[in-house]
Amino acid sequence: MSGRIFRLSHRVTYSECTVGNHVYYARYLDLLEEARGEFFRSLGAPLLVLQQQDTLFPVVETHLNFRAPARYDEILNIDLWVPRIDRVRLHFAYRITNQAAKLILEGGTSHVCTTLSEKPKRLPGTLFDALAPYSAGAPTSVES
Amino acid sequence: MSGRIFRLSHRVTYSECTVGNHVYYARYLDLLEEARGEFFRSLGAPLLVLQQQDTLFPVVETHLNFRAPARYDEILNIDLWVPRIDRVRLHFAYRITNQAAKLILEGGTSHVCTTLSEKPKRLPGTLFDALAPYSAGAPTSVES
Amino acid sequence: MSGRIFRLSHRVTYSECTVGNHVYYARYLDLLEEARGEFFRSLGAPLLVLQQQDTLFPVVETHLNFRAPARYDEILNIDLWVPRIDRVRLHFAYRITNQAAKLILEGGTSHVCTTLSEKPKRLPGTLFDALAPYSAGAPTSVES
Amino acid sequence: MSGRIFRLSHRVTYSECTVGNHVYYARYLDLLEEARGEFFRSLGAPLLVLQQQDTLFPVVETHLNFRAPARYDEILNIDLWVPRIDRVRLHFAYRITNQAAKLILEGGTSHVCTTLSEKPKRLPGTLFDALAPYSAGAPTSVES
Repeated sequence: MSGRIFRLSHRVTYSECTVGNHVYYARYLDLLEEARGEFFRSLGAPLLVLQQQDTLFPVVETHLNFRAPARYDEILNIDLWVPRIDRVRLHFAYRITNQAAKLILEGGTSHVCTTLSEKPKRLPGTLFDALAPYSAGAPTSVES
Repeated sequence: MSGRIFRLSHRVTYSECTVGNHVYYARYLDLLEEARGEFFRSLGAPLLVLQQQDTLFPVVETHLNFRAPARYDEILNIDLWVPRIDRVRLHFAYRITNQAAKLILEGGTSHVCTTLSEKPKRLPGTLFDALAPYSAGAPTSVES
Repeated sequence: MSGRIFRLSHRVTYSECTVGNHVYYARYLDLLEEARGEFFRSLGAPLLVLQQQDTLFPVVETHLNFRAPARYDEILNIDLWVPRIDRVRLHFAYRITNQAAKLILEGGTSHVCTTLSEKPKRLPGTLFDALAPYSAGAPTSVES
Repeated sequence: MSGRIFRLSHRVTYSECTVGNHVYYARYLDLLEEARGEFFRSLGAPLLVLQQQDTLFPVVETHLNFRAPARYDEILNIDLWVPRIDRVRLHFAYRITNQAAKLILEGGTSHVCTTLSEKPKRLPGTLFDALAPYSAGAPTSVES
């Protein structure tokens, strides 16, 4: 009954770190955006193409739990799935681990599906179908 | 019965904006850090001094609700208060509005009080006392 | 015979620092943008207003000399002047010092004056006049 | 007589873009750091390992020529070579092109070789040898 998970790997740079030699807390949101971008691309629906089809997914909410610091030069695995899809809303869940499988971050983002002029609209049907396999729930299988 | 609120004003730069001419979602966490830094300074306890006294406040959780986009060159007012102080935890609440009083963001961050070697410790008593006026609750008075 | 200098002060945040507890080298370009933005505002010609008048100043070149590291919580003074104005080009020079007057950075940026559709155009005459006092050369007087 | 060139490819994210839908000028320095990091790794000498051997390469100078804007979702190819190695200095040259082979940026960074306590020191001999193939000059062959 479990669903698919998308994984993006990312090497931590100096640019992302701060005093105390760990990743700055805001930079994780940059990483989650990078993962979402590659996830949509993997579905055959890059965000740039969706945008040209008058579809945007602005973020309306996020929550992040910082479990352990990530360090310079570590490889982070950003796991992403879709716990819920509503008519006009899309919810992502994330789990970041480092190369030693240590849990770094858990979190989520919620997005509204809108037109370029920021009116809410229904998710395109083909996108809804492409997202479905990632919405079944508990993270048990990982692909990269 | 309401408490004090600390306000920091911030002019939005190009650096903070992204495609679509609004502030990038991760940059709000940078702004909240800037506000916390100035808040501790206003209490007479700059974070750098606290650090020299073996006290850190690493972030363990955050949640953000994005209410409306902020634009280049707008002046944002970042309001901050302290809804809860535990023995070893500190909780901040935030509300960002623009110069037209439009609500841009609501959110919170939770921090653990630790030593430099990352062991949890009790909040210093003088800091606890200095924070108290900001913990009474509903935002009815603002200072800058 | 010397010209005027514009000064912006900026408090270093954690967000701007990296491993080794100093400001990350790319962040200085963010600071120089902040200084230019406030400088144009001080001339009565905010960049947003210029943009509404079909005038942009995209950066075409920069050079930076990093003289000493800047640290978290330091106050940086960013001095800016205009060593040269051509018909369609504008050149800024910068000098950043910390609160102990230690030299942190020297550098410059060159900008083309263009329309919104990115065609080069002459600098607006009133802007040329407003910039003139900052173009006389050696930095001997500072205003903030 | 021409030398080797190291290439890193990078997909542009929203995080790196600004108003006007192009990469913000400071973000290129983040990209150059990412390229240097992967270059040292490809030589078998990751910067983290060098640091553990008491060797750092702080940046002392940079110059950048912005040739054309890079856009969201473009793939940038960051080419890097080593035009000059002195006893205690290391110079990198860069050329960034997009997937259509359009020139986006040319530039360079200069670094001093130092100990962790920031004293200049000679480049380690094995590193000098590993860098040599990238120092012959004109960019005619590219590896990725």
